[in-house]
Amino acid sequence: MADGSPDIPLRVADADGSPQDQRRAHILDAARACFARHGFHGASMHQICAEAKMSPGALYRYYPSKEAIIEAIAEDERQKAMTVMAAFQQEGSLVDRVTACGLAYMRLMQRPASGQLMVEICAESMRNTSVGERFHVIECDIRAEFLAAFGAAQAAGRIPADVDLAMALKVLLSIGDGLVMRMGLEPDMTPEAVEPFLRRTVAAVFRLDA
Amino acid sequence: MADGSPDIPLRVADADGSPQDQRRAHILDAARACFARHGFHGASMHQICAEAKMSPGALYRYYPSKEAIIEAIAEDERQKAMTVMAAFQQEGSLVDRVTACGLAYMRLMQRPASGQLMVEICAESMRNTSVGERFHVIECDIRAEFLAAFGAAQAAGRIPADVDLAMALKVLLSIGDGLVMRMGLEPDMTPEAVEPFLRRTVAAVFRLDA
Repeated sequence: MADGSPDIPLRVADADGSPQDQRRAHILDAARACFARHGFHGASMHQICAEAKMSPGALYRYYPSKEAIIEAIAEDERQKAMTVMAAFQQEGSLVDRVTACGLAYMRLMQRPASGQLMVEICAESMRNTSVGERFHVIECDIRAEFLAAFGAAQAAGRIPADVDLAMALKVLLSIGDGLVMRMGLEPDMTPEAVEPFLRRTVAAVFRLDA
Repeated sequence: MADGSPDIPLRVADADGSPQDQRRAHILDAARACFARHGFHGASMHQICAEAKMSPGALYRYYPSKEAIIEAIAEDERQKAMTVMAAFQQEGSLVDRVTACGLAYMRLMQRPASGQLMVEICAESMRNTSVGERFHVIECDIRAEFLAAFGAAQAAGRIPADVDLAMALKVLLSIGDGLVMRMGLEPDMTPEAVEPFLRRTVAAVFRLDA
């Protein structure tokens, strides 16, 4: 892979590759594009069918409703989150591993419409809708995992004792979301170009050396 | 003011305070809430009238169209941007001044619906709509001003010569947007709580001491 990360799959939904799974991945790609363009509420099944170039009858065989599509996208996002967390399980210092998570997140979000969809998901979360709540649950799991690891590192003396870990995590998540959001607007913000800045900011959040 | 920043006004649109200006500020607040909730395209003049508790006849006397309201909000955002840039003109080191900008931005965005509206504006920018373009112009001015100041600081030896200033600025803007976006979801992410983290990350972006 051109970006030097052979272990991070760019596509998650169609990993299995059966014709049915490919069809589902195709529909979800079309739905993501529609949701990114029109929002979760604004986009219609009619638009998703048009984007996927499928008849309603063919599409409804895979997903009987917009809610079912949103649920499948949420499951896809959950798998992406697990891919990001896998980067955290690799060898290296805490700064290495958190930086690797950030880069994995950026790579996963390089797919067209991913950044826009993240912004739509965030808007839903801010509006406290059921869609927002569905995606919020995924983030809660990630946060718990990060916080447990940060707590262990602090207990072992690898993070200064006076760093507020809960706030550090919120700032790191802010930086990750901000980078992904802006990456969708700035073609030169590749994971490779951002990496040295990301590494330094991660270290700074924990008051560690980069 | 409770947050210890008497020089940063929380409200911009109604600074003058004539009854007409207060009416306009009231309408814009209602419109911001509607746009944050339903998006720029989703929100209708009917909803804005209901939110403002005004009849269409009364509201249309101030703003004849949704486009006129969006234009007024863009002008308001431009004034906010100038408030943020004023924080950059204050005394102190480069890290002090960029941190002050970030905090000023967070304080201005603490108004209800501000963070959500920023997310909607970003979504519009990603979709390349005319609304997105309108707000993009404001950002271009800010970027030019920051880049000129960063360039002068680098020429004077106050930023290491090998720091890519254009990318540093994009990363800083990402961090600012990410913080404001998440601040809307996390009540404890106040400017005061975030300040030490922000200061350290700003310094890290430039490879300077915090």
